[in-house]
Amino acid sequence: MKAIRWHPPSFDIRVEEIPAPKIEHPDDAIVKVSLAALCGSDLHIYRGHGGPGITAVHTCGHEFIGHVVELGSNYGVDSAKGRPELYATLKVGDKVVSPFTVNCGECGVCRLGYTCRCPSGLLFGSPALEGGQAQYVRVPKAGATLFNLNDPHSWSSSLPAELKATALAGIADSSLLMLADILPTGVFAALQALNHPKVLPALTGRPFPTSFFPGEASAAMVAEDRTLTFAIIGLGPVGLCAAVSLLDMLASKELPFQIIAIDPVEDRRAKAMAIYNKIDTAGKGKGTFETCDIEQAKKRCVGCSAVLEVVGNTSAISLAYDLVRNFGAITSVGVHGQPPVPFTGSQLYAKNVSFDFGRCPARAMFPLAFDLLVKRQDVFGEVGGPDSLVDRIVSPDEAPEMYRAFEKNQVGKVVFKMN
Amino acid sequence: MKAIRWHPPSFDIRVEEIPAPKIEHPDDAIVKVSLAALCGSDLHIYRGHGGPGITAVHTCGHEFIGHVVELGSNYGVDSAKGRPELYATLKVGDKVVSPFTVNCGECGVCRLGYTCRCPSGLLFGSPALEGGQAQYVRVPKAGATLFNLNDPHSWSSSLPAELKATALAGIADSSLLMLADILPTGVFAALQALNHPKVLPALTGRPFPTSFFPGEASAAMVAEDRTLTFAIIGLGPVGLCAAVSLLDMLASKELPFQIIAIDPVEDRRAKAMAIYNKIDTAGKGKGTFETCDIEQAKKRCVGCSAVLEVVGNTSAISLAYDLVRNFGAITSVGVHGQPPVPFTGSQLYAKNVSFDFGRCPARAMFPLAFDLLVKRQDVFGEVGGPDSLVDRIVSPDEAPEMYRAFEKNQVGKVVFKMN
Repeated sequence: MKAIRWHPPSFDIRVEEIPAPKIEHPDDAIVKVSLAALCGSDLHIYRGHGGPGITAVHTCGHEFIGHVVELGSNYGVDSAKGRPELYATLKVGDKVVSPFTVNCGECGVCRLGYTCRCPSGLLFGSPALEGGQAQYVRVPKAGATLFNLNDPHSWSSSLPAELKATALAGIADSSLLMLADILPTGVFAALQALNHPKVLPALTGRPFPTSFFPGEASAAMVAEDRTLTFAIIGLGPVGLCAAVSLLDMLASKELPFQIIAIDPVEDRRAKAMAIYNKIDTAGKGKGTFETCDIEQAKKRCVGCSAVLEVVGNTSAISLAYDLVRNFGAITSVGVHGQPPVPFTGSQLYAKNVSFDFGRCPARAMFPLAFDLLVKRQDVFGEVGGPDSLVDRIVSPDEAPEMYRAFEKNQVGKVVFKMN
Repeated sequence: MKAIRWHPPSFDIRVEEIPAPKIEHPDDAIVKVSLAALCGSDLHIYRGHGGPGITAVHTCGHEFIGHVVELGSNYGVDSAKGRPELYATLKVGDKVVSPFTVNCGECGVCRLGYTCRCPSGLLFGSPALEGGQAQYVRVPKAGATLFNLNDPHSWSSSLPAELKATALAGIADSSLLMLADILPTGVFAALQALNHPKVLPALTGRPFPTSFFPGEASAAMVAEDRTLTFAIIGLGPVGLCAAVSLLDMLASKELPFQIIAIDPVEDRRAKAMAIYNKIDTAGKGKGTFETCDIEQAKKRCVGCSAVLEVVGNTSAISLAYDLVRNFGAITSVGVHGQPPVPFTGSQLYAKNVSFDFGRCPARAMFPLAFDLLVKRQDVFGEVGGPDSLVDRIVSPDEAPEMYRAFEKNQVGKVVFKMN
């Protein structure tokens, strides 16, 4: 089969013919990949910044969609009962999307919903697990890892029945592919911001301390106190998904808000506004949405209830600190590297700031992310358009050039048509 | 009047006769101080580490209790209506306790409950505001700042009526003084840990993501998943208050738990166990409580649901990181200084860790802290005893020696009898 492979030490992507994967464990599935995407976090390894353990040649990619072509012996048998549902129900031919990591679904970490930190977890497209930028990919623990797009039963219970019936037919594969990483990560960023106890007083009208011991609504609170203000730092594909998700959540609860979406790149800001402009009036909710660059942000949006940091570097997290109010929350889903966190202890104490760091538990977020995709797919336009998350769909043969151009910010999100 | 005063640059405490404070603003109250305490955070200025702005001679202390002896002209008048309640109800003679900072109670920050970051806030015992280690203290914006111990109406609505009637009579002033800082700060630490969305799945049985969109209870969760594990780092007075508060909250909800309380000092660990041993069976709840030193902690309690960091230095926050599980929460109420936070971005990303930093909004926490004091006062023993938060009550004339000894860890919490 054809596969897009990384070679050490850096900047060396080759399209190679290698043997197709086989079932290695009874829990495995083999997926025939239709589309696989290039993600910003693929660049860490591409640049040779994957860390000291990342030296082996491997197939790239952790965002893919396809069909099941082979299942291990643990599927559809009596012993599948009591295990994650897909061990009993998944069939050859089912259309599936995978999160970017494997999870077992049967340990305490998975049961709590923290699927991306499953102790049996492996990242696709790393030396530990061959990636999805190939014609076929082996998915370990597939009965827990995969999301079966052919089975409405596994979708969120909050999705209206009439949407379930027609949901899948109306969505392009290049949109469904966003479920692998960027859409759940955006939903995760928005959800963490809205869930944070430091945001709750404005959200509920009940002053801090609240939640564990529900407080009483404060008659004294005025409308201004209850207007939630958010900054989104970084308007790449994940930041755009975070924006759409945040808007949707705020609109669904009819909460008043202000969102300022920040990126130094004008084209990205324009794309954010193009997507926002396509949202219907009800979906826009009771608030405002603006874009600006970093200097404007520092002047205009200091004092945010919460900041969504979707970049993953030192300047982004510093900007988040500058923009958040005292007793505000910073939710950081960017993939941070080796530089030290740029704060002194007294800075953090003095601002009563909170941080939520880390990787999205994508598998646990799938139902919410799929809901959002069904409800809001219309805001994402045709591939390559000014309002599309995907810049282009290309042949895998173009991978070396696309990696090079993507690393230089010369193309947006690239999808490879693998079959 | 007699006052305990700090002189620059450091380690220079003098007991001096100075003019008693006067009403300077119609919102002021003058409080005759019965007891004032020495707090670990007083040591920052004592050592000359208060920062470049801290050069002026001033009266020390931000923990005090006393009686109102004079009120400004804004009290008990028609214009007090619609303002914080004490502008209408506070009277000369009322017994009051103050949080360590002033708050106006009338701005958006105060209305949200974030009283310790009120833009009009001032810290007692700093060049900006004379402290409470004096025979009299001026309290700005006293109608919002003070807690009236003579007015059960202002106490928490969750306190049973039969306790309200007798509550005050049964509590020593040296215990009520703990309301000024250490008890609400302990409650704040415990509350932030239990409120954190990353702790909620174990607490509620509903897997992540939950809360903003209430998830469904997971039939798959087992008892072990739902056992909350906590580390408390630092068993000074605030750490002990955090431990009692956490135990009380967990017991009140009948939640299963494990608490490991950590301190390198054997006497502090012994005090923690002595206090724990005095809690009745119902108050101990459905869990275990142990103490250990730092090395034992690193071996035994890795993987905590949440860590309460009550020290405020680099090694404490590093230990917190080591002990917390993936997707765990660290609540840091220690007063951190100038050293950089000792983490790389990738460490925080890799563990999906959350932090809540900062100062307790003590005024907003008073009702919960007072509840706890009423319910659990019996666990804190006689002054100087092995189970007491207060080591000794002394004359203010001993202040220079007590500051010296406290800074050297040669005495525990010291209270000055000012009148």
